[in-house]
Amino acid sequence: MTKKIEIIGLETIPEILPGDDIAEIILRSCKIEKVPILDNDIIVITSKIISKAEGRIIDLKKIIPSEKALKLSVITKKDPRLVELILKESDKILKALPGHIITLTKNGLVCANAGIDRSNVAGSSEIVILLPKDPDRSARIIGKKLENMTGKKIGIVITDTYGRPFRNGQVDMAIGVYNVCLYKDYRGTLDLKGYRLRIKKIALIDEIAAAAELVKGNGAEGIPIAIIRGLEWKNCRESQINKLYMKEERWFFK
Amino acid sequence: MTKKIEIIGLETIPEILPGDDIAEIILRSCKIEKVPILDNDIIVITSKIISKAEGRIIDLKKIIPSEKALKLSVITKKDPRLVELILKESDKILKALPGHIITLTKNGLVCANAGIDRSNVAGSSEIVILLPKDPDRSARIIGKKLENMTGKKIGIVITDTYGRPFRNGQVDMAIGVYNVCLYKDYRGTLDLKGYRLRIKKIALIDEIAAAAELVKGNGAEGIPIAIIRGLEWKNCRESQINKLYMKEERWFFK
Repeated sequence: MTKKIEIIGLETIPEILPGDDIAEIILRSCKIEKVPILDNDIIVITSKIISKAEGRIIDLKKIIPSEKALKLSVITKKDPRLVELILKESDKILKALPGHIITLTKNGLVCANAGIDRSNVAGSSEIVILLPKDPDRSARIIGKKLENMTGKKIGIVITDTYGRPFRNGQVDMAIGVYNVCLYKDYRGTLDLKGYRLRIKKIALIDEIAAAAELVKGNGAEGIPIAIIRGLEWKNCRESQINKLYMKEERWFFK
Repeated sequence: MTKKIEIIGLETIPEILPGDDIAEIILRSCKIEKVPILDNDIIVITSKIISKAEGRIIDLKKIIPSEKALKLSVITKKDPRLVELILKESDKILKALPGHIITLTKNGLVCANAGIDRSNVAGSSEIVILLPKDPDRSARIIGKKLENMTGKKIGIVITDTYGRPFRNGQVDMAIGVYNVCLYKDYRGTLDLKGYRLRIKKIALIDEIAAAAELVKGNGAEGIPIAIIRGLEWKNCRESQINKLYMKEERWFFK
């Protein structure tokens, strides 16, 4: 007996425009590619296409930076209009250094630039894209619609690409979820030797996000959606991404 | 055309004992499970079984804690003998709090307790297991042997489970590598809209580590080895895990 999981990248997702219905677009691609959605599939979606569908696209030319943004742009050498948006999306600026702004977003996520992205946006480098306003809500809407249309039980994980404090390079992490329990919890279980495991609480949805990136590619390839198939996972209707974000009082590093 | 990757967990790996030949054990399981190794397979190995094979098993009863270890054990409420080992494996103690010691290991890895583990070790809770001394070397030995025995070009990633500064739960990360380039580098490439990507340098081997954990399970299931199949990856003979570890002078958070 061999345990096997598949990660399937959908290659026919078109460019997403404001107002597009992501659930319908996923189903259309599944049909074109002859990959029908099965029970227990987890659909992993790059946040950027959700932002686009939700119209979270901003023309920097329309932004007038505040005094605070102007000051921060001097320190960080970033476009003051972009800094203005970063401030608006953030609860707190954690670090401000030349070339870098590390934020705690209003959703509780620690990341650079409040997750605002300049790449992959139509036409101009003056156009930036914000994270979905409420990624769990986005996941829920897409997930419920897919469940209704297919009759299958599925999970949704929404992802974005971030750096890590002590490791070079970036990996995809979860920023929104529907149905999938955040953790695989080994605490209290016995290992092979009967020793009680104390700390293993695996952030399953972050591993799902990272695994999906393996087929996605963020460059010219452009595969914004992957299906994780064959994974055993538990259903948590009440899954909330902010439970994955460590509360500030528990941070060791500041 | 649909892009697909498989993650295959080997379920017949026996308990590993000091002196065991991991390469031979992998091939034997592949044979039993009828999963022959193919060209471009990446074999992902939980570090613990390598530590066991390499005899990196310590009986705490034989450890006499130093003055420094005794002091640190008071602060952290940890077994002074364990603290002694943590100090020996570390270049630096980054944080010492009740219940927690965050270390910079001699290999340059930031992690709790210098990666020393009490679980899954034969018989007694007095037995602890250290990380492999030089995980890249371990990966290279196993990788070259597998290549020689199969005639296939393969990659190896050695993993361990760690927490993250701002996110709850743990994920598997890479701590050793053979043949696989550390990064997928999108910097300088053009995205779908012709916008030059500036920061995307994906830590591929960390995503491989996380993906493999999806089939592994760390609890009673005990699947220490997974094969990643169908992934496009570049061969870097000179891959070194410590290039993935951010140098201290570049840390934003301390």
